[in-house]
Amino acid sequence: MQAVPNIDLLITNCTLLPDPGEAPLPAPAFIAVANGQIARLGPMSACPTRVSGTVLDGQGQLAMPGLINGHCHAPMTLFRGLADDLDLASWLHDHIFPAEAKSVCPEMVVWCAKLAAAEMLLSGTTTVADGYFFEDEVARACAETGLRCVAAQAVLDFPAPGAADPKQNIEVAARFLERWQGRDPLITPAIFAHSPYTCGNDTLRRAKALARAHGVPLFIHAAETRTEHSLIAEPLASTSLGHLSALGILDRDTVCVHCVWADEDDLDLLAQEGASVISCPQSNAKLASGRAPLAAMIDRRMRIGLGTDGAASNNNLDLFREMDFVAKVHKVRPNEPTAVPAREALRMATHGGAEAIGLGGGLGTLAPGAPADLLLLDLHPLWLQPFHSTNLLAYSGCASAVRSVMVNGQLVVHNRRVLTLDLKEACAHVRRLAKGSPP
Amino acid sequence: MQAVPNIDLLITNCTLLPDPGEAPLPAPAFIAVANGQIARLGPMSACPTRVSGTVLDGQGQLAMPGLINGHCHAPMTLFRGLADDLDLASWLHDHIFPAEAKSVCPEMVVWCAKLAAAEMLLSGTTTVADGYFFEDEVARACAETGLRCVAAQAVLDFPAPGAADPKQNIEVAARFLERWQGRDPLITPAIFAHSPYTCGNDTLRRAKALARAHGVPLFIHAAETRTEHSLIAEPLASTSLGHLSALGILDRDTVCVHCVWADEDDLDLLAQEGASVISCPQSNAKLASGRAPLAAMIDRRMRIGLGTDGAASNNNLDLFREMDFVAKVHKVRPNEPTAVPAREALRMATHGGAEAIGLGGGLGTLAPGAPADLLLLDLHPLWLQPFHSTNLLAYSGCASAVRSVMVNGQLVVHNRRVLTLDLKEACAHVRRLAKGSPP
Repeated sequence: MQAVPNIDLLITNCTLLPDPGEAPLPAPAFIAVANGQIARLGPMSACPTRVSGTVLDGQGQLAMPGLINGHCHAPMTLFRGLADDLDLASWLHDHIFPAEAKSVCPEMVVWCAKLAAAEMLLSGTTTVADGYFFEDEVARACAETGLRCVAAQAVLDFPAPGAADPKQNIEVAARFLERWQGRDPLITPAIFAHSPYTCGNDTLRRAKALARAHGVPLFIHAAETRTEHSLIAEPLASTSLGHLSALGILDRDTVCVHCVWADEDDLDLLAQEGASVISCPQSNAKLASGRAPLAAMIDRRMRIGLGTDGAASNNNLDLFREMDFVAKVHKVRPNEPTAVPAREALRMATHGGAEAIGLGGGLGTLAPGAPADLLLLDLHPLWLQPFHSTNLLAYSGCASAVRSVMVNGQLVVHNRRVLTLDLKEACAHVRRLAKGSPP
Repeated sequence: MQAVPNIDLLITNCTLLPDPGEAPLPAPAFIAVANGQIARLGPMSACPTRVSGTVLDGQGQLAMPGLINGHCHAPMTLFRGLADDLDLASWLHDHIFPAEAKSVCPEMVVWCAKLAAAEMLLSGTTTVADGYFFEDEVARACAETGLRCVAAQAVLDFPAPGAADPKQNIEVAARFLERWQGRDPLITPAIFAHSPYTCGNDTLRRAKALARAHGVPLFIHAAETRTEHSLIAEPLASTSLGHLSALGILDRDTVCVHCVWADEDDLDLLAQEGASVISCPQSNAKLASGRAPLAAMIDRRMRIGLGTDGAASNNNLDLFREMDFVAKVHKVRPNEPTAVPAREALRMATHGGAEAIGLGGGLGTLAPGAPADLLLLDLHPLWLQPFHSTNLLAYSGCASAVRSVMVNGQLVVHNRRVLTLDLKEACAHVRRLAKGSPP
């Protein structure tokens, strides 16, 4: 036992899971946090004494890295459950687009993003990669609520909320990057080129050039649906990903979201160019888009992460449920019993996802020097009894077991309460906005 | 407003969802419970005053029928997370069977069934159809914990816990039926013939004759895996369900569990004989058994329900998660966006499931004269905001929103606490038993 000065917060007596793809430490452990990072961790026998900061008793709790939601449209929380059980075209054109046309404005974006941020924090997510319109408001909502966010301003060749003239979209995005780069430790600005079928070649090239100029990631929906596959394949004699590669869009700073319709050549291309993939298995299933070839991506050691997509097509933002779903849906055929094991789901939802969205520095693991983004999970709920293995976190973990959450060294959820937001106020705003939203 | 005597419990000011396949009542409502049944319900304007019993304020809560878990092996909770991400043969032969051989005894069954019953009640399940060995202990555990249970004693042609001589299995089951028929309002005894590949023709016929003689349902795993399909199809030139039909086993009191490999002819047979089906989509996915043809069953208006299967292959007993999974996994292909809509999942998990396991009398709906088996769901959790439609119960409902649960007119969960069981004691027993269980 030794005194260590300048500890902001010390968690004692917890079960420590530094890497959710591996086993937890055998003995009760401590985590010391200073300056937003993990300063030290280890067995209680090495725990510092006489620290200056707060001490949190982690008895009966599992400390693990915070979860990384690799793809979300946080403001779409307004449309949660607005339209279900429809084909994508009808869902989008008859319900979501009209509701967006009616509802999307800075006020809607900020309140719905705050609610989404709170929902994510309460279910153990400490980082989200978000893409939407008025992304300033999403960034602001996340910064205020204490959720780490890669906030990507949407670009597409149609009039969009906040940029009625599509020609201005790139300019709007450029100003967004300028406003947010280096501004807040929680916020990494980025670009979200909507998709290869809503962005023309020039827009795609300009969006990527802008992202490169600022050294930020470019996110893009790609190879999501059979319809997209047909739209691209027929005129261009190429797949969506082949098209993006030919335009020079794919590199290690490009994040391809969905990739359901990626074929073997596409996967080789992605692996070769080093582009990463975020899979959103629940959204892809609910909208009958299909199932991404994750097992083949794992085989190629690609950088892959997990996303909830927006609440409108999920219908929640709980990555524990996403892990459960991804591990099960990929085993549904008789030759697949070992595809996407629980430990891969856990990796995708933690450091795998962090790497996939371009955040390094040990995010998604618990290690000295890594950002102090972590959660304390109550090990007492009946659905975690008995606890034979950490696979259970993927197959039976859920939001209600999340007791405390820290992001960048700040406690933002404690004893299942969000400390950074007046939830009643946020809910009241969202309910008021929702009344006007069904078309 | 009028006085109504002999009300045991009155729920006021709730949002009332009498049939989860339909919309809730528009106005705040009441439910009056007497003698284990729903006596009256309706808008608050018709609410009785001056009742003698307890009054529960349902403000901000949704009252809906309790969920019906159509297939479980409650004691297998001991093996939750013991072995994952394996093919069925390895999972069963290398892990589960050895663990069962080492662990299954009346003490194990009663404690694990108690824990399972508590887990189900806390997640809104008010009835379970269970099948295992030492089923007396499951029945006792459910009766004590206050969970309605169709308890089915297992029969198979192998030495089994509690009946070392397979010849005695039918006799053991007969005595089980005699002990439990008419004994406890919560318990319906039944027979669980394990499967067509573990029970010979004579055993299957005798098990069905026994069930018929007592007027109880026969449960059987059928058409679960491709291996079973081959085992039966090759020597008999028949499908599993064709084989059961030829033996005279299929009728309205036979419940076929899984039916993943049912072909069109099998479905016609099931529909014609009136046998019901319980689907366990998460277990079927996790063990790579496949996906049951539910959309075709819905088209045939068959009686179908939803089951979690045991915790060892799920890994929990939460029917809200099962509803979410069943509605999504059946849409995973591009031609399936409208297959198994949320309202069908809700039906399967309530009155559809009740009918499928042979429990009538309005169970699974809220109506005068129906058993008072219901739950009060907190409408405040963020993952239910905004609440555009009851589809959200299937796509985003979860155990943690369940605030109170009533079975047969008795409050068994209140403010998220089980009133009928010392959970700490039960958990301690299960953890002690689990220490010895990994093979």
